[in-house]
Amino acid sequence: MSQQKTLIAVIGGAEPTPEEARLAEEVGRQLARKGAVVVCGGLGGVMEAACRGASSEGGLTVGILPGGSAANANPFVQVPIVTGIGYARNIAVVNSARVVIAVGGSYGTLSEIAHALQNGIPVIGLNTWSLSRAGREDISIILTEDPARAVSIAMRLALGLAGDE
Amino acid sequence: MSQQKTLIAVIGGAEPTPEEARLAEEVGRQLARKGAVVVCGGLGGVMEAACRGASSEGGLTVGILPGGSAANANPFVQVPIVTGIGYARNIAVVNSARVVIAVGGSYGTLSEIAHALQNGIPVIGLNTWSLSRAGREDISIILTEDPARAVSIAMRLALGLAGDE
Amino acid sequence: MSQQKTLIAVIGGAEPTPEEARLAEEVGRQLARKGAVVVCGGLGGVMEAACRGASSEGGLTVGILPGGSAANANPFVQVPIVTGIGYARNIAVVNSARVVIAVGGSYGTLSEIAHALQNGIPVIGLNTWSLSRAGREDISIILTEDPARAVSIAMRLALGLAGDE
Amino acid sequence: MSQQKTLIAVIGGAEPTPEEARLAEEVGRQLARKGAVVVCGGLGGVMEAACRGASSEGGLTVGILPGGSAANANPFVQVPIVTGIGYARNIAVVNSARVVIAVGGSYGTLSEIAHALQNGIPVIGLNTWSLSRAGREDISIILTEDPARAVSIAMRLALGLAGDE
Repeated sequence: MSQQKTLIAVIGGAEPTPEEARLAEEVGRQLARKGAVVVCGGLGGVMEAACRGASSEGGLTVGILPGGSAANANPFVQVPIVTGIGYARNIAVVNSARVVIAVGGSYGTLSEIAHALQNGIPVIGLNTWSLSRAGREDISIILTEDPARAVSIAMRLALGLAGDE
Repeated sequence: MSQQKTLIAVIGGAEPTPEEARLAEEVGRQLARKGAVVVCGGLGGVMEAACRGASSEGGLTVGILPGGSAANANPFVQVPIVTGIGYARNIAVVNSARVVIAVGGSYGTLSEIAHALQNGIPVIGLNTWSLSRAGREDISIILTEDPARAVSIAMRLALGLAGDE
Repeated sequence: MSQQKTLIAVIGGAEPTPEEARLAEEVGRQLARKGAVVVCGGLGGVMEAACRGASSEGGLTVGILPGGSAANANPFVQVPIVTGIGYARNIAVVNSARVVIAVGGSYGTLSEIAHALQNGIPVIGLNTWSLSRAGREDISIILTEDPARAVSIAMRLALGLAGDE
Repeated sequence: MSQQKTLIAVIGGAEPTPEEARLAEEVGRQLARKGAVVVCGGLGGVMEAACRGASSEGGLTVGILPGGSAANANPFVQVPIVTGIGYARNIAVVNSARVVIAVGGSYGTLSEIAHALQNGIPVIGLNTWSLSRAGREDISIILTEDPARAVSIAMRLALGLAGDE
């Protein structure tokens, strides 16, 4: 019987808009209330906001860092993972999660969305990328503008529950 | 004075359409004629077609492989790089190139496009992804349907030449 | 003010002797009692024994996995980090720790010891490798046969305390 | 029928003694004369000396770089592989080779030797680490002080030839 906790990734850029930071913090808060562990890239911006939110509710936070030192983690990361592999750590962030919640973000976030979809990990997007490719109708980012709803969907997907909320 | 050769990446899926395979092979052929080294992910499909094209013109081919053995390289890879780091090798493929040419492709290719754009490496697309994000007008995949033209643009960008062709 | 927990790595092989497994489990137990988080490679053998020991004392356990799925984690891993980068994850295991405790182990463990020493992370060894190189007297694996003593030294080093125990 | 070239890794530190640099350059020269491709970590010291030697004989040189730019390659690298994964690139250096030749070196070289032995890749050592572990008699670094002999052994192992030289 596994002791694994439920990890949910929050991804997004280091330089979010104030609205994106607010969304990410609320996502972190809601995830902690539901008992999920927040996993992220460990740095500032959306990552820090999500950790701050989770931490304020007593949740556990994991930061998977690109560099070679834990000193660069944002102050709300409780478990720093020091990979030293640069942007390749993006893949570990999404692969470690049962569901990915993307808030805003630039090309790094886009690469994380791509890696998540490649590995069959559901992606929920708040104010983030749109993708299209000729001949493909199946691209599955679940879009919402409500952080509570994003977390509610994420938890249902993570726990394998059927039906709507 | 550097002895570095000019590396151009050809990226795309392992299961291309016949038309995509034809495009990739022609891209490989043209790159070899211009003296470029083809770098790719080393496996089948678009990667193999590009290597076959380059090899048929006497060009050098480099395959950056995800697994732990050179045995999985396609038969036209001359220099197999055995990373063992899985999909994280996608980042090395694009970072090693001065310009990236994408042919078709699925989520793995999308992640490579994202990593290239993140690192400021120009991307030329043949029948590949379209990206959009609210508020951003600057997303720069150069789209064309002609492999010779793709290579011509790539070589100009790689060599830092100004002006059009 | 950082919220970072104190991570200590326990490294060693997937096929330990019964004595090595006993040592690793006791190391895990002692680390949990001192409030440290056990970080390891997440698989069986020494890694599982350390997690089992820590878990039995209510400690937190982190497994940094080589493959692409959390399903391969040992059952006592609470926070699975799914890197997908193969043996390259060894570097993340040791870099994430303030101190490394090696129990037995083969070449994988040797690579982890080397990476730790390269990054200036102290290594405490129980029944593990000896290293030598002509002209170097400074190779610093702290050897002991007592798991309680290993943990005591590790915690002092991790917390930056001077003096002996 | 594979078009793969024969890659031999030359590993060692960035700050070699003059004698180690001389050995590495001679190893590079001999490898090029035998038609092998030199693969290395792409930076200075032993890596640069090996590339300089190979290049002086018209050989092909591949540098697998830790950082995110080809600009840090030594001037004799012809094919720069830009991994961006830091020290994790050490694993790719040895895995890409049929045989590894170690010249001097510190902990980074030790990690590469460990990874090579873990993957069953033969290691030939010139003035490098000695390893021992209680109960193991099978640790197989082939020691020599003659670079021509090191290359001769390496080529026989790489090409699967039996017998002595």
